[in-house]
Amino acid sequence: MGLKETLRKQAQRTKAAARSLAKCSSEVKNRALLAMAERLERETASLLTENMKDLEAGKEKGLAGPLLERLTLTPKRITEMAAGLREVAALPDPVGEVLKMTRRPNGIQVGQMRVPIGVIGIIYESRPNVTADAAGLCIKSGNGVILRGGSEAIHSNIAIARHLDEAGRAAGLPPHAVTLVETTDRQAIFDLLTFDDLIDLIIPRGGEGLIRTVVEHAKIPVMKHDKGICHTFVDESADLQMAEEISLNAKVQRPATCNAMESLLVHRKIAASFLPKIAKRLQEAGVEIRGCPETIKLLEGGGGSKIVPASETDWKTEYLDLILSVKVVDSIESAMAHIATHGSQHSEAIITQDYAHAMRFLNEVDASAVFVNASTRLNDGYQLGLGAEMGISTSRIHARGPMGLEALTCMKFIIFGDGQIRK
Amino acid sequence: MGLKETLRKQAQRTKAAARSLAKCSSEVKNRALLAMAERLERETASLLTENMKDLEAGKEKGLAGPLLERLTLTPKRITEMAAGLREVAALPDPVGEVLKMTRRPNGIQVGQMRVPIGVIGIIYESRPNVTADAAGLCIKSGNGVILRGGSEAIHSNIAIARHLDEAGRAAGLPPHAVTLVETTDRQAIFDLLTFDDLIDLIIPRGGEGLIRTVVEHAKIPVMKHDKGICHTFVDESADLQMAEEISLNAKVQRPATCNAMESLLVHRKIAASFLPKIAKRLQEAGVEIRGCPETIKLLEGGGGSKIVPASETDWKTEYLDLILSVKVVDSIESAMAHIATHGSQHSEAIITQDYAHAMRFLNEVDASAVFVNASTRLNDGYQLGLGAEMGISTSRIHARGPMGLEALTCMKFIIFGDGQIRK
Repeated sequence: MGLKETLRKQAQRTKAAARSLAKCSSEVKNRALLAMAERLERETASLLTENMKDLEAGKEKGLAGPLLERLTLTPKRITEMAAGLREVAALPDPVGEVLKMTRRPNGIQVGQMRVPIGVIGIIYESRPNVTADAAGLCIKSGNGVILRGGSEAIHSNIAIARHLDEAGRAAGLPPHAVTLVETTDRQAIFDLLTFDDLIDLIIPRGGEGLIRTVVEHAKIPVMKHDKGICHTFVDESADLQMAEEISLNAKVQRPATCNAMESLLVHRKIAASFLPKIAKRLQEAGVEIRGCPETIKLLEGGGGSKIVPASETDWKTEYLDLILSVKVVDSIESAMAHIATHGSQHSEAIITQDYAHAMRFLNEVDASAVFVNASTRLNDGYQLGLGAEMGISTSRIHARGPMGLEALTCMKFIIFGDGQIRK
Repeated sequence: MGLKETLRKQAQRTKAAARSLAKCSSEVKNRALLAMAERLERETASLLTENMKDLEAGKEKGLAGPLLERLTLTPKRITEMAAGLREVAALPDPVGEVLKMTRRPNGIQVGQMRVPIGVIGIIYESRPNVTADAAGLCIKSGNGVILRGGSEAIHSNIAIARHLDEAGRAAGLPPHAVTLVETTDRQAIFDLLTFDDLIDLIIPRGGEGLIRTVVEHAKIPVMKHDKGICHTFVDESADLQMAEEISLNAKVQRPATCNAMESLLVHRKIAASFLPKIAKRLQEAGVEIRGCPETIKLLEGGGGSKIVPASETDWKTEYLDLILSVKVVDSIESAMAHIATHGSQHSEAIITQDYAHAMRFLNEVDASAVFVNASTRLNDGYQLGLGAEMGISTSRIHARGPMGLEALTCMKFIIFGDGQIRK
C-alpha cells in the first residue's frame, strides 16, 4: 500500500472514530483526558528514552541550540503536558450548548446547537508538547484529530500519541480518535491536504513557511496562525507612567511570541517627555531601538546613545526579539493609518485617557484583539478567559484571536415542530 | 494591462472601499440600500434592454429553455430585486454587536465585537437577480463585494452592478464597494481565487461543477453551498396524518431546491398503513417513486401501479425533481445509519411522537438543520428567522445552514483595561 492509501485508511478510521466521539458524554471525554494525563506521567521514563532518540538524531543533523531546546522533553515538561490535559478536562464541554432558541410565527422553535466540527488535522513543528495539547482540545470538543508533527520529533510524537490513544480507548473513547502520521515523509502533508472528504479543518502551527505551504496546497479549510506585527500607540493624553509599564511589558515580557509589541507609536505632543524615559528602560532591558528621524533626534539629542534609523522594512518586521521600531506620529489618525498599512491585524493597543480616542481605536482598528490601556501580551486564551487554546487565529472567518474549545465546534440548526410545512 | 493586473486593480479598489465601508453607520448603509432599490426600479426600461442582449445571445448560443427562463428579467423580477434590497435595509445591522462581555480577575473587561469580514467574492451562475441580492447583503454587513456572474448574463449584470455602485456612492458609500468583473473570460475566476491578500472569503453559488472548481483552485476560504440529499424518517410512533402532510410538502412544494426531500424512510411497523396512502398522494402530484424491495411489495401488492426499483445510486442522488426514493427501515438506528451513509448533511427530519427518539435524532444526526415534526423545506433564512440569506452553507466551519447577515461578519476581541500587563 502506498503512502497516500495508508494515510487515507488512517483518516477514514479517524473519521469513523469522530462520529462516535461526537456522541460521547462529557463524562467519558473527561475521564479519558484524565487517564491520558496519568498515562503520560506514568510513562515519563519511556517518553524520555524516545525523546533521547530524537535529540541524538537532531544533534547528528546539526540542529541549532534553540531548536534542540524546543525538542527536549524533561520530567517537568511531561508534568506540564499532563497538567494541560487535566485543565482541559476541567473546562466546560462546549458540545450541546443551544443558542438563540426562538419561536417563529408558525410555531416552530428554532435554535442553534453547538456540535463538533468532525476531524481536525494539525500540522505542526518541533515541540512535542503540541501533540498532547492539541489532542486534548480536539477530544474535549468532540473532534477526531490527525496529528502531523515535525520530523525531528518523530519518536517523541509517536510515543505520546500512542499513549494518548491507548489511554483514551481504555477510558471509553473510540479507537483512533487520536491519530499520528507516523512517517517523516514530507509528502504526507501534501496528501493530507487533499482529503477534503475526510478532514474538515486544518490548523497549521509553525513558521510562515509552513503556513504558506499549507494554504497553497490545502483543499480543506485552514485556520491560519500568522505573524503578529503588533503596535502600541501612546496617545497625547496617555498616563505616561502607565504607558511606560505597558510598553515595557508588551516588548520584553516574552519577546518571541506573536502578541509581543514590535512597533511603538508615540504622539508628537508627549514624545519629548515620554520617549527618553521608555527608551532608557527598554535599553536597560536589552532592547535595540530602531527609530524614525524624530525619535532619533529626541533620543540622541538628550545625550542618549546612538539609535539605529528605522528603514521601511522595519515597520513591517516581526522581530520576535529584543528589537523595537519607534515612530513619532502627529495624531490618532496617523497612528491608525500606520497600523492599517503596516500591521498584521493581530494585537493592537492604545494608551489614552481620552474617551473618544479609546472608542475610535476600539471600533476602527482591525485586529484579532484591540486593547485600551492594556498590554498586547494579554491576547491569549487564558488571559481573555477562554482557557487552553490552539493558538491565535489570524483568519477572518470562523474564529479570530485565541482559539479555545468553542472555536473547535460549529453550529447546527435544530427545529422542534408539530406539523409545520412550507407554505 | 493584462487581465490579472486589471482584476487586481479592481480588487485593490474594493479592499480600500471595504475599509471605509466598515466604518459606515447603519444609517448611511440603509440609505444606500434604499437608493439602490429605487434606482433599479427607475431603470427598469434600460435594464430590460440590456437583458434583451443577453437573451438574444443566449438564443443564438442555443441555451435550453429553463436556462433562458432563469436569465430573463421582467418588470416583476426587477421589483422583487428592489424589494429584496429594501428588506435587507430593514434588517438589524449586525456590525458592532458585542457579545459575552466579562470582567477578568485582573480587571480587564473582555468582549467580542462583530465586524465585517472585509471583501467577499461571489462567483455565481446565470440568475441576474443574485447580483443585487448578494450585493445588498454584503453592503449591509459592511463588506466590499466582488461579483463574478455567469457569462450569459453579462450585459444584465454590468447594468445592475453599475446602478448599484452609482446609487450607493450618491448615498454616501465609498466608490467601488460593489464591483462586478466585467469580462466573460473564464480565466478571471482562477485569477480571483488567488488574491488571498485582497479577498477574504469566496462564496460560490451554482451547480456542483462550479463549486468543485472553486474549491480546487481557491487560495482563499470558501463557504460551500453544496447539494442536499435530504431525508424524512417516519417513525413507528408518528402521527401518520402529519407525516403525510410533511412528506408531501417536503417533496413537492418546490422540488428543485436543495432542501427538498429526496428520500423517504419509513419504519417497518407502520409501512403497511402509511406507504399506500402517501404513495397515492405523491403519485397524484406527479412524483415517480423508486422503492426498496419491501416498498415495492407493499405498494404493488395493494394493487397499485408498477414501482421502479431503487438502485444503490438512487440513495445518493439529489433528483431536484419529482422523483423520490423510498426505503423501509426497521428502527431509528437504521434510519440514522442510512442518513449518515447516504445523506449530504443538509436538512434531515424525523416524524415521531416518541420523545426519546425525537431527542436522539436532533442530537445525533449531523446536518445543517435537523427537524422534528416539520418539513425540510423550512431550512431557509426567512423561515428560520434570519431574514434574507446568501444561500444554505454546507460548510462545517464559520457558518452552517442559512447564511444571513451574521454569517457575513466575524468577531474581534475588544479589551477595556486600566493599566493591565501580562505577569
